[in-house]
Amino acid sequence: MTHRSRLAGFIIDCETEDLDAAADFWSAALGSAQRDKERGKYVVLDAQRGLHVEVQKVEHQSRVHLDIETDDIEAEVARLEALGARQIRKVRSWVVMEAPTGHRFCVIPAETDDFNAEATAWQA
Amino acid sequence: MTHRSRLAGFIIDCETEDLDAAADFWSAALGSAQRDKERGKYVVLDAQRGLHVEVQKVEHQSRVHLDIETDDIEAEVARLEALGARQIRKVRSWVVMEAPTGHRFCVIPAETDDFNAEATAWQA
Repeated sequence: MTHRSRLAGFIIDCETEDLDAAADFWSAALGSAQRDKERGKYVVLDAQRGLHVEVQKVEHQSRVHLDIETDDIEAEVARLEALGARQIRKVRSWVVMEAPTGHRFCVIPAETDDFNAEATAWQA
Repeated sequence: MTHRSRLAGFIIDCETEDLDAAADFWSAALGSAQRDKERGKYVVLDAQRGLHVEVQKVEHQSRVHLDIETDDIEAEVARLEALGARQIRKVRSWVVMEAPTGHRFCVIPAETDDFNAEATAWQA
């Protein structure tokens, strides 16, 4: 079986009571218009080179986390576990993982237009 | 006066004694070959959509930080300060800043090929 994955983008997690102000800063800092939002939860910024970039309100410490998109969540989580990552929890359609370097990241369903052409194919 | 800036990429800062293992993980996780390295300091990964992606050994807590590239460091730092960021320190050719959301990021000299065509132009 073959599945595919690649970097989808990154999420700017903000421990803040003022998501609008956080999104305003990052939108202006990166020169990316605000495209889509769910009030009080997240603001999606216009893509930088096809990346998904999002400012999100969180309860934990502020950080940047990477998203890896895939056409097979289960196979990709298993691949990343074999590399040394561990599964933290499932959240709706995605899985939160922790790298051996301590970084949290998410494995999410592939959504980008050119995913099939550009993602890496992994043989199980 | 006009200057330009844009997202250059991100650095995966790793608080580790084993940079090679950290780079091996992220290289495999993202499907990006290791392109360039300075032993014990950093490993540059093959570009994802033209982004600069690098795994770096650090002494502070592991995190991901964004790099903003510009053709005028001083003007870009001033622009970001006006948005609410603060300057932490200068390091050789770049400046470490902290966003109002608490995220550290760097302002670096523009190096990418399509910088002039793709970066945002800011009027002072």
